[in-house]
Amino acid sequence: MAVTAVRAADSRQRFIDAAIGLFTRHSFAGTSLQMIADEVGVTKSAVHHHFRTREELLNAVVEPLLGEVRRAVEAAEGKRGRRARAERMLTGFVDLAVRNRLLVPMLVGDPGPIEMLRSRTEVSDLVNRMIMLLADLDPGVGGWIKADMVMAGIAGGMSARSSGLDDDVLRRYLIEASRRTLGLRAPRCLT
Amino acid sequence: MAVTAVRAADSRQRFIDAAIGLFTRHSFAGTSLQMIADEVGVTKSAVHHHFRTREELLNAVVEPLLGEVRRAVEAAEGKRGRRARAERMLTGFVDLAVRNRLLVPMLVGDPGPIEMLRSRTEVSDLVNRMIMLLADLDPGVGGWIKADMVMAGIAGGMSARSSGLDDDVLRRYLIEASRRTLGLRAPRCLT
Repeated sequence: MAVTAVRAADSRQRFIDAAIGLFTRHSFAGTSLQMIADEVGVTKSAVHHHFRTREELLNAVVEPLLGEVRRAVEAAEGKRGRRARAERMLTGFVDLAVRNRLLVPMLVGDPGPIEMLRSRTEVSDLVNRMIMLLADLDPGVGGWIKADMVMAGIAGGMSARSSGLDDDVLRRYLIEASRRTLGLRAPRCLT
Repeated sequence: MAVTAVRAADSRQRFIDAAIGLFTRHSFAGTSLQMIADEVGVTKSAVHHHFRTREELLNAVVEPLLGEVRRAVEAAEGKRGRRARAERMLTGFVDLAVRNRLLVPMLVGDPGPIEMLRSRTEVSDLVNRMIMLLADLDPGVGGWIKADMVMAGIAGGMSARSSGLDDDVLRRYLIEASRRTLGLRAPRCLT
């Protein structure tokens, strides 16, 4: 990459990082492009150069995470047996949630992004596949409720109270509690 | 009450009901007093007559629920033994969450109301007491994480997928799954 291209990618990433922090604190609807410009210390037109709307910025924020979710869902769907599939989906989701501690709670709780993402068919399809992999352990409405509870619970377990924990420690707590919720025993061999 | 007082209380309640629906769909920051007026079919000044700001309206929305939470926390704190206290807090919270299926997820997930409520000392104190009653089953960071997961999980379990269920059925699913998460056996005698 030429120096200017590197710089453009750099400032693009700075806007994305600032947006995640502001969306988390003030919600998506409560964050303006002006607030993002102020946070980074540039003019609004500098943000406009990369992102024309708040929605474009949200898509840029979410896109890498969607790739991670897709890979986790596909890895789980490739396993044989409901328990192995649920276990792989659970650990895959906890892994990516712990790496994206601010972003995942926002996407689970804030109605703005939820509404926007739900309108994208490939996203709602992905979320349904994820829920199905967890719900399949207990077919019926009870299984769906437990799957919803686990997804929301993992997001909620990454609150301010656990913010000082190492990724590995937090990951173990979240997986262990979620297994209990789902009625999933720990596999003999952890991978 | 005189007829005009009844009418004033009526329209006040209509604004509150409309606000809950709009806050849920568009988030608190994404809802204006104008949108609430449009939803009810009145002018913005008619809303202004009752609520001068969106924040005043949110307080009116939340106040009755805070009363319910306070009563549930006090009832749980009055029990003897950690298990009995956690069990009473869990069932009390599920009861009020199921009766407030739209409101509770909003207050758990939307950063706008969370920020506003956290700044009220008596509310953050109440939330801490609630978490403590659940976390006390497993003292230490693991207990706090499970308590956070259960609170968020209950809110998440009341998603669109469970919206058709009777209160009693939904209540049983949420309590049973939360007990498993917390490692709380069902009490011999359900009260």
